[in-house]
Amino acid sequence: MSDSKNGVKRRLPLEGITVLDFSRVLSGPYCTMVLADLGARVIKVERIGTGDDTRAFGPFVEEESAYFMCFNRGKESIALDFKSPRDRELLERLLDKADVVVENFRPGVMDRLGYGAEQLSRTHPHIVYASISGFGHTGPYKGLPGYDIVVQAMGGLMSLTGWQDGRPARVGTSIGDLGAALFGVIGILAGLYKRSKDAQGTHVDIGMLDCQAALMETAFARFDVEGKVPTRTGDAHPSLAPFESFAAKGGRIVIAAGNDQLFMLMADALEEPQLALDARFLTNDLRVRNRPDMVEAIERITLNRSVDEWLAKLNEAGVPCSPINSVDGLFDHPQLVSRNMFIQVQGKSSRKVKTAGNPIKMSTSPEEDITVTKRAPRVSEHREAILAELMADKGAYEAQCHCEELPESQVKEGHYQFL
Amino acid sequence: MSDSKNGVKRRLPLEGITVLDFSRVLSGPYCTMVLADLGARVIKVERIGTGDDTRAFGPFVEEESAYFMCFNRGKESIALDFKSPRDRELLERLLDKADVVVENFRPGVMDRLGYGAEQLSRTHPHIVYASISGFGHTGPYKGLPGYDIVVQAMGGLMSLTGWQDGRPARVGTSIGDLGAALFGVIGILAGLYKRSKDAQGTHVDIGMLDCQAALMETAFARFDVEGKVPTRTGDAHPSLAPFESFAAKGGRIVIAAGNDQLFMLMADALEEPQLALDARFLTNDLRVRNRPDMVEAIERITLNRSVDEWLAKLNEAGVPCSPINSVDGLFDHPQLVSRNMFIQVQGKSSRKVKTAGNPIKMSTSPEEDITVTKRAPRVSEHREAILAELMADKGAYEAQCHCEELPESQVKEGHYQFL
Repeated sequence: MSDSKNGVKRRLPLEGITVLDFSRVLSGPYCTMVLADLGARVIKVERIGTGDDTRAFGPFVEEESAYFMCFNRGKESIALDFKSPRDRELLERLLDKADVVVENFRPGVMDRLGYGAEQLSRTHPHIVYASISGFGHTGPYKGLPGYDIVVQAMGGLMSLTGWQDGRPARVGTSIGDLGAALFGVIGILAGLYKRSKDAQGTHVDIGMLDCQAALMETAFARFDVEGKVPTRTGDAHPSLAPFESFAAKGGRIVIAAGNDQLFMLMADALEEPQLALDARFLTNDLRVRNRPDMVEAIERITLNRSVDEWLAKLNEAGVPCSPINSVDGLFDHPQLVSRNMFIQVQGKSSRKVKTAGNPIKMSTSPEEDITVTKRAPRVSEHREAILAELMADKGAYEAQCHCEELPESQVKEGHYQFL
Repeated sequence: MSDSKNGVKRRLPLEGITVLDFSRVLSGPYCTMVLADLGARVIKVERIGTGDDTRAFGPFVEEESAYFMCFNRGKESIALDFKSPRDRELLERLLDKADVVVENFRPGVMDRLGYGAEQLSRTHPHIVYASISGFGHTGPYKGLPGYDIVVQAMGGLMSLTGWQDGRPARVGTSIGDLGAALFGVIGILAGLYKRSKDAQGTHVDIGMLDCQAALMETAFARFDVEGKVPTRTGDAHPSLAPFESFAAKGGRIVIAAGNDQLFMLMADALEEPQLALDARFLTNDLRVRNRPDMVEAIERITLNRSVDEWLAKLNEAGVPCSPINSVDGLFDHPQLVSRNMFIQVQGKSSRKVKTAGNPIKMSTSPEEDITVTKRAPRVSEHREAILAELMADKGAYEAQCHCEELPESQVKEGHYQFL
């Protein structure tokens, strides 16, 4: 996973970091997928037999879950029985190796297993421990289950999404999970950075609901300042105009020209410069207030030509615009292709699955390999290899100690292999 | 910003990090807001006079932009004239102090100013330099302007959001900007972690469009595997059922009970256990296929009682559920309040503005102060203080060098104060 440029070796930023990943379904696995994409080693601890629930989620490629493959690419898997003393011993050795622990059980579950954040902060104080849950580990809702649609609805995002004349819509992707996953990654990396300074781990406690609130942009401030309840605005921005789609011949085109400079450029590109001199449309504020008039005035023009014709003209003029793309055209989108944004994940069969790759492009990272990506693991696929590695570690450790007998308590503190 | 718990001093994870922030509007400022919330010092470099464009965006509190206040809380501001040799000298001293640079101009703008990533990688190789732009710094679209609605439309997210019988909707918050901001923070923190190992900075090149693709969840895989174009599904999840809202007496309730275990619990809580035995609804797959029948069967029950009554019953049974909250009720939401998710940002006037706080809760961070938050700066408010600080640094540096004459080139390399 490394190459070089101008003689400087490129490396992924998280090479050397080991993540012990107890998480399942989406928020946790997406979080550790981002860490894996950045070079971390992710060891997925799965339930014996069925493993991660999403192994049973469609769509399927020859009975293998494409859902699971996408978000678990490049990870290792070991299935462990938390009730078996032997597996618990093994888990403690893995914790000794881990820099990061990620889990997304309901608060209390990891504590009952004996591996809660509080417990590990005593035995493994170097670990950055991230919990992702519906509502976080404190507060009156902490015991409730939180799923994507629940936090989208509870946090207010649904009330802002959709058209006025229809019902509130869910964001068409699980932003409740993905938002929490991204804030989780941020907390973990901030914790690792802090640890590089003070050698201490931390507990990162992410609530999906909190993250929805954090993504509400200015909705709270608008309500607080203006007293009006923000509501859904279809495809328009609540305080910028134009910033929405307009009917063209045979389709719709999005135009984002909220500031007055862009609005003038737009009027010129639409070959109707007087639009920018219309008293109703002179400023963004006026355009927001006179939005229906503005839409009518713009569509009177845009309806005369096709989306593609307008895209060409507006792009040439430097006016932000876009067609409303559906998924089918995107695998060939020249920009996404050029940015290596589609990768192919190998499964058990020869059939690869296309999914989005890593959007964090770093000048110091190796060139991306998008055609053959490290595949998602089978349940417990890496158990033997991990066992062998732990045995080798133990041998090396004992050799390093000149075979002195170390009190078990001290070994368990897990300090010896940190720093 | 520090207190202690059990005698251990708590600190924010990014204390000691200085961010030089050339960004404006939303994606960059949200990115540096997250860094500031985590303890970084953010110095905002603004255009002389008007400063950040969003200082002119509503809503306003006594003529001060609440939009600006929310996303620039806790930052310092210095206005600089890039054409003035004196200000350029000052900027280079600031770059010597900076760990991180953030900018969200169109590709090429910072290069023309003389402060592009490539240029600074030679003079200030320790800097983690993050660029956020519509399409990234490579590829055929790199020169085009990318605004939130443009990338939501282009990246496919709009095509998944809204109801089948209505038009595609925009996600009701600027997820095009915020998604890029979060991936930007992740890239920066990964870069800082890497730098703690190899003492080298990096260029993080974030394209908003790429980030939209990365947030499409399984939409690409579904199209690739099944050949059907994913489309908008209102408030339902495309592959889980029930995972949507249902009509109750006087309102709607969201129920997320996709797995069979939860579906059984739901049927019991709805006092209609035979629902879980209905051949059409035995598995999630069957429920997705028979969704209209399932909705009808569930609503036949839910319509008989109020949302609150069902919430109580479903919560007691452990079934994920929620009302569809609008913004007005959220300031009193018991969980968000308990999690300190609302902060009050002070402006010039005595009127504070409420907005969402930091969702990254770390056990090692100081207790949050939510009532008096460090306020957003006036344009160039900190110029004098920063100048004085640079003079003091220079004095300290010269004293440290015993007043030796250092060749200017060496000073400019910026190595001397790093590591």
